[in-house]
Amino acid sequence: MLPSIRCRRTNLIRRPCLSARLSTSSVLLANRAIVYSSFGNPSEVLSAITYPDLPPPPSKSLNVKYILSPINPADLNVIENKYHSKPSPVSSLSEGRHKFPEPHYVGGNEGLAEVTESVGLSEVNAATITVNPPTAYNMLHSFVEPKEGDLVMQNGANSAVGQAVIQIAARKGIRTLNFVRNRPDIDSLKNYLQSLGATHVFTYDDLKDKETVQNIKTTITKKGTSLMLNCVSGEPTKDMTRLLADSATLVSYGAMSKQPLILPTSLFIFRDLRCRGFWQSKWYEEHSIQQREELMKTLAELKLREPEYEILNLKGTASDEEVAQQVRSVIAKIQEGRYGRKVLLRFEPAQ
Amino acid sequence: MLPSIRCRRTNLIRRPCLSARLSTSSVLLANRAIVYSSFGNPSEVLSAITYPDLPPPPSKSLNVKYILSPINPADLNVIENKYHSKPSPVSSLSEGRHKFPEPHYVGGNEGLAEVTESVGLSEVNAATITVNPPTAYNMLHSFVEPKEGDLVMQNGANSAVGQAVIQIAARKGIRTLNFVRNRPDIDSLKNYLQSLGATHVFTYDDLKDKETVQNIKTTITKKGTSLMLNCVSGEPTKDMTRLLADSATLVSYGAMSKQPLILPTSLFIFRDLRCRGFWQSKWYEEHSIQQREELMKTLAELKLREPEYEILNLKGTASDEEVAQQVRSVIAKIQEGRYGRKVLLRFEPAQ
Ligand SMILES: NC(=O)c1ccc[n+]([C@@H]2O[C@H](COP(=O)([O-])OP(=O)(O)OC[C@H]3O[C@@H](n4cnc5c(N)ncnc54)[C@H](OP(=O)(O)O)[C@@H]3O)[C@@H](O)[C@H]2O)c1
Ligand SMILES: NC(=O)c1ccc[n+]([C@@H]2O[C@H](COP(=O)([O-])OP(=O)(O)OC[C@H]3O[C@@H](n4cnc5c(N)ncnc54)[C@H](OP(=O)(O)O)[C@@H]3O)[C@@H](O)[C@H]2O)c1
Repeated sequence: MLPSIRCRRTNLIRRPCLSARLSTSSVLLANRAIVYSSFGNPSEVLSAITYPDLPPPPSKSLNVKYILSPINPADLNVIENKYHSKPSPVSSLSEGRHKFPEPHYVGGNEGLAEVTESVGLSEVNAATITVNPPTAYNMLHSFVEPKEGDLVMQNGANSAVGQAVIQIAARKGIRTLNFVRNRPDIDSLKNYLQSLGATHVFTYDDLKDKETVQNIKTTITKKGTSLMLNCVSGEPTKDMTRLLADSATLVSYGAMSKQPLILPTSLFIFRDLRCRGFWQSKWYEEHSIQQREELMKTLAELKLREPEYEILNLKGTASDEEVAQQVRSVIAKIQEGRYGRKVLLRFEPAQ
Repeated sequence: MLPSIRCRRTNLIRRPCLSARLSTSSVLLANRAIVYSSFGNPSEVLSAITYPDLPPPPSKSLNVKYILSPINPADLNVIENKYHSKPSPVSSLSEGRHKFPEPHYVGGNEGLAEVTESVGLSEVNAATITVNPPTAYNMLHSFVEPKEGDLVMQNGANSAVGQAVIQIAARKGIRTLNFVRNRPDIDSLKNYLQSLGATHVFTYDDLKDKETVQNIKTTITKKGTSLMLNCVSGEPTKDMTRLLADSATLVSYGAMSKQPLILPTSLFIFRDLRCRGFWQSKWYEEHSIQQREELMKTLAELKLREPEYEILNLKGTASDEEVAQQVRSVIAKIQEGRYGRKVLLRFEPAQ
């Protein structure tokens, strides 16, 4: 949920900003932003702020305008001060032209911003291509590399990452065994994920039923799956490990249950389980600009379906207080869980 | 805590039986054994039984006589039915010559047994060389291979495995950061471990003290350790992970706390933690007889100090009931924890 920002003109942004990476070389300069000055519950601490108009960019810089800014779980964790990377305060703007207490932080890490060229993807795809799809792609390629016909298991299968996993796997003929939380309209979720290419969809509740587990073992996993992707941790993850093959790799990328990873030690000793983690930000740091662009190209060519989404229009004519209220209340709803749609902020121009 | 057994004459036992492996190709035949017919608390379910005298071995077999039979934690787990491998019942001996209910199981997995040659190690060393020292040795060599000057961290450092880790590491100039449970005479335990070559010894309680942790970080671990060996799981293990370097490997081989491995998912995602497990039995299965003998030779040459031990003499003149009572009560004491000595059973001859 980045607002308009100014970026130094680096190689990174020769193409339309698909770019979480942008923020590492960017300076916030103008227009409206969603900000906070103390850490806490995002549905309480967020404010909106309108900065002065952008002056023309200094040399080696350019101005970009964010078109759509998704609200990702990690954005909320940063605001709660529960994320590994700490945000840098914006203090360069304290020129007395607005009344927001200094220092403050700008929320968000991803989005679609306009520079010059047009992007060739849908706005929503372009706004959500730099964090979740590459995470899915890299997790399928950096550990145990499943081949056509192999089975990959994941939880949080309806997350944006999970949906990308399903689609990328399906393109390669990799079967997916997907787990989601139960809900009243579970069948429509199952149908939706199957329409993306999911081979099997179950709920964590199913894992409490011995017969279903036995059925999954005999008809689906057989000798077990060798790759499991973990978005959730806690109890569901522990239950799923019974479906793993010996010497399987469990890759964690999220902890949406807010529980730790709790695993019987015997899995490591007797079944040779291997636990790893994946962080897309680190992948970006460790790879060259060429490799990053190559990955974006690969992902763009996969033409993944947009995640189910909802755009929150933040009217240019609304006051900062009204905008803050809009953002806070959608976040409160997201935090209740089972929201089912990625929310993207659209900062509309004032006139 | 194996009794006298008969083994098929395989390559494995061309040399004096140093051999947990023996049991995989052995048939129990005679004399006294510590047995059980239902799973449960070993301090309650164990009995002693005297089998008829051994007949002469059939072809391709030989008779061996156990001299010392250590009581290892895994032996107790097997009896509790909490171990990965299930024991096989002994039913070939139901010839009505004793009154023990059939089927029953014989406890134990390691020991020193006599065949023909003499062994060149102390009895205690020979009786305890096939499970714990190879586990220590292989964990130091199969994952991150630490070099001279590197630091390895472990919990359960006063376990038989832990003591072997300390000594093997010290021989190679590898520093060890050791953790144990607190106790009234903690200083004498620290001195003992340091006499084995331990570089640093702390208690899990020390990890609750911020200043001590900070001190360990600045003076000992610095950028963190890259290899941690886990005998304990649960809370202490979680606390210790704060001392790990990025991309460190945590190798689990025991779960003495009876707690699962509980780790924040963030360690995997942001610090690239890698969790593995080690099982010596599997190592034996996966390696040739030559490799096994090579390892035993290497370990024998390291001349590790005997673990602190206590020999429980099971008198040949005592009744099976008396012997069972002796074994049960020492196990009850071991189960209280902080026992500090490896208990070895010596089955004394009847006359
Ligand atoms: N490591 C990386 O590099 C990386 C990259 C991208 C994302 N991530 C992480 O991946 C996770 C998903 O991100 P996203 O953008 O895909 O999120 P998203 O589209 O908002 O989806 C969130 C997912 O979490 C599930 N969830 C929420 N609360 C839960 C709970 N208490 N128990 C079980 N499941 C719960 C939701 O299921 P319901 O529908 O049942 O609520 C949904 O499947 C986040 O933790 C994010 O930080 C990590
Ligand atoms: N994976 C393998 O291949 C392999 C091979 C050998 C051994 N093992 C396992 O390694 C472990 C140690 O075996 P060992 O023969 O070395 O055992 P041992 O000499 O009997 O030592 C047991 C150790 O466990 C500690 N302990 C007991 N209860 C504890 C608790 N509740 N919390 C924390 N620590 C506790 C003891 O510390 P205190 O003095 O404080 O009681 C002691 O350090 C066992 O779990 C065994 O099954 C595994």
